[in-house]
Amino acid sequence: MRLDVYPTVLNIPPEDELADCAAVVIDVLRATSTIVAALANGAEMVIPVLSPEEALFVARRNPERRFLLGGERNSVLIPGFDLSNSPREYTRDRVAQRSVLFTTTNGTRALRRAEGAGVVCIAALLNLSAVVQELASLGKDVAICCAGTHDQFSLEDTVCAGGILELMTRTCGRVETNDMGYVAQELFRRFDGRLEQLLHLSRHGQNLLKLGLQEDLRICSQVGTYGVVPRLNRGQIRL
Amino acid sequence: MRLDVYPTVLNIPPEDELADCAAVVIDVLRATSTIVAALANGAEMVIPVLSPEEALFVARRNPERRFLLGGERNSVLIPGFDLSNSPREYTRDRVAQRSVLFTTTNGTRALRRAEGAGVVCIAALLNLSAVVQELASLGKDVAICCAGTHDQFSLEDTVCAGGILELMTRTCGRVETNDMGYVAQELFRRFDGRLEQLLHLSRHGQNLLKLGLQEDLRICSQVGTYGVVPRLNRGQIRL
Repeated sequence: MRLDVYPTVLNIPPEDELADCAAVVIDVLRATSTIVAALANGAEMVIPVLSPEEALFVARRNPERRFLLGGERNSVLIPGFDLSNSPREYTRDRVAQRSVLFTTTNGTRALRRAEGAGVVCIAALLNLSAVVQELASLGKDVAICCAGTHDQFSLEDTVCAGGILELMTRTCGRVETNDMGYVAQELFRRFDGRLEQLLHLSRHGQNLLKLGLQEDLRICSQVGTYGVVPRLNRGQIRL
Repeated sequence: MRLDVYPTVLNIPPEDELADCAAVVIDVLRATSTIVAALANGAEMVIPVLSPEEALFVARRNPERRFLLGGERNSVLIPGFDLSNSPREYTRDRVAQRSVLFTTTNGTRALRRAEGAGVVCIAALLNLSAVVQELASLGKDVAICCAGTHDQFSLEDTVCAGGILELMTRTCGRVETNDMGYVAQELFRRFDGRLEQLLHLSRHGQNLLKLGLQEDLRICSQVGTYGVVPRLNRGQIRL
């Protein structure tokens, strides 16, 4: 079994190279952490869209569907939106049985790029163990697609990719990976048990700290809070 | 002082963001190792070109300049070329006072992308200490541009970037870096003194081993063989 890691949206291979793989999309701070929390808390679906304008347009055209609007620009709530990009806000009270139109800076682009794969799973530290179980049962080669931050490598996505590799190695014995995967797995081994500390070191983490969002770093660094593996299929993310 | 690391050609920032920086281009296996060896052994200049066709065209148009043709496709000598992409071949006997038209798969593209920077230095493990001295004396912020392998992260370029960060930290005290730089520096610390072993682990290293080029891995993993820092300026690389 082969699990290759791609550090940013730009490095995700073209659609034809992904067709036979399962893709895993990771944006720990905070898009995929938020999506996992939303679906674990009963949201019907999350629909990733590329821009706030697209979200507002779709919501206005379909008032009967009572879409929630969620996401961020520059890490904060978008004017006119219901929810920001924090897993703390996607409580059962707010999201149960609702559909969320969702747009973020890095995560949404990564989801679009990974859509060429046969199966697209949404991963964060919050559902790490469940993702590994799912991938082991699928038995396909895996493209682990980190969103990164503004097209640059990010510690938080890489350590999550490394966690998938490490848990998969423990589950299946040896797995094959690429150079990025080697480094990711080493990073996870080094910070296993103190992932919150690594998120504080990361550039994106530091930006969130400046905005007073340290509680989000604490939540997003927790491993295995949720047992769900959301999947992206035809533009909709559902369980 | 700030030194940011970019893992592949795709992640190198656009020209306007590089304008005030010194850029360092790294392709340890083997383009920048070969360029450093060529100039240390007395070559007048190396001219990077994007394709074998471009090299042949320029050479035919300028027979009086007696260009040497160097480089690789799929890691081997290009038909009609004088030299491959191995530092072993660029001996004083072959290259002294000659100009080399040079084309490789990853390194040449990285050089072109980095050209927007005010200063562009060529780095490999072979001239690591000299590069650090040069950067310290320049005193500019630095964009460390790894070529990577086919637009993917590579261990060998990253560890060289990490070596620059580590030696610069020892020279100047604390330096600022990005998430990629943090991981690169950790990788260098872990493999300092056994870099050849890391090159054997890398995917590109494994491909070269299959071609019987283990001697190139040994040579390219040596730190500080040469005291030169070639610079790219107006399309020409010279000392």
